[in-house]
Amino acid sequence: MSSQTMPELLTAALNWRYATKKFDRERKIPAEQWALLEQSLVLAPSSYGLQPWRFFVISSPVLREQLPAACWGQLQPRDCSHFVVIAARRNADPDFVARYLTSIAETRGVSEESLQGTSQAILGKLQRMGDNHLPWTARQCYIPLGFILQAAALLQIDSCPMEGIIPDQLDPLLGIQDSEWTSVVACALGYRAADDAAAGQARVRFPAAEIVRHL
Amino acid sequence: MSSQTMPELLTAALNWRYATKKFDRERKIPAEQWALLEQSLVLAPSSYGLQPWRFFVISSPVLREQLPAACWGQLQPRDCSHFVVIAARRNADPDFVARYLTSIAETRGVSEESLQGTSQAILGKLQRMGDNHLPWTARQCYIPLGFILQAAALLQIDSCPMEGIIPDQLDPLLGIQDSEWTSVVACALGYRAADDAAAGQARVRFPAAEIVRHL
Repeated sequence: MSSQTMPELLTAALNWRYATKKFDRERKIPAEQWALLEQSLVLAPSSYGLQPWRFFVISSPVLREQLPAACWGQLQPRDCSHFVVIAARRNADPDFVARYLTSIAETRGVSEESLQGTSQAILGKLQRMGDNHLPWTARQCYIPLGFILQAAALLQIDSCPMEGIIPDQLDPLLGIQDSEWTSVVACALGYRAADDAAAGQARVRFPAAEIVRHL
Repeated sequence: MSSQTMPELLTAALNWRYATKKFDRERKIPAEQWALLEQSLVLAPSSYGLQPWRFFVISSPVLREQLPAACWGQLQPRDCSHFVVIAARRNADPDFVARYLTSIAETRGVSEESLQGTSQAILGKLQRMGDNHLPWTARQCYIPLGFILQAAALLQIDSCPMEGIIPDQLDPLLGIQDSEWTSVVACALGYRAADDAAAGQARVRFPAAEIVRHL
């Protein structure tokens, strides 16, 4: 229970968050809070609602020990409470789109025929992109990344967004080498170590007047 | 003041949000709430903290009337309360990186010399990308997009993320044609119209068991 208003809570969370460099290896995110963070990934929006992504949550101690080598030696993937890799679909082929349309029809109780306009819009856009959809599907992955980072901050859970992954080494650990999916970005979540030097550093931002333009 | 816990509030917000198709033209986001939404953009993280973005908030009635034509005829940019375009930097050239490093030095009170390792890491990464940094800077833009969408939902402000923009037509309206910046993605924010058909539609998601993999 909180006596603060949502604007106050949100302001506090946005300012509390930072990219945690050193996690407390002993502290784990409680299961019900982790379930909510997964919900923030699943409920994040995507273009057309297509969800061209997979979320890999790695808990296996054996895998966790192998992660730093696939992440340029960074230790957050090993030391955090929960490590998530967001993978994107290389090619949103017609089969994938068809499965999405089936999913719409089932959820909303409409016929697939009634979705032909949606189908054509999506397939048309994908066709114009050519065979490699990864530049586009990879962008989508940063929306759930934003969602889980902000959700974690609201729950006072620390996080570190990580682009420093090596897909060629990480994908085999996830069992997705030579598949339709490939690692795009990752996020370490948990609790900062008491001696994380990054925690005390002032946040650096260009002046808002430079970044935000009002027209 | 709320009697709900943060997990309850967050769950409610994640489930309340949807892509608003028709906005109430009369209802405007209060200034102090808008200021907080801008903060959610400014405080969003980016790779290396580089912030290779600009946020354009368009209020001018004249511009607002011109937006639909630059957005495939969609009316949300005209009808919403606040319309934001997120633009990315085409090329994060050494001058831009130098300005960022100056910003770190000033904010943290350290010498620029002490940041040489950071500088080399960033410049090395950018060099390996070649001359066109847009595929990477555009990805970054989806993090603040995620931040403002979730922040809006927490404040019970409706939103519609919009990839359907035409940069060649939108950039001149923003005054950034032939510049280092180009439109990547946009977001309409405000309040749903009473007759927005999209508001009543069930949310479509692939089953969590398919999307989230535990290893």
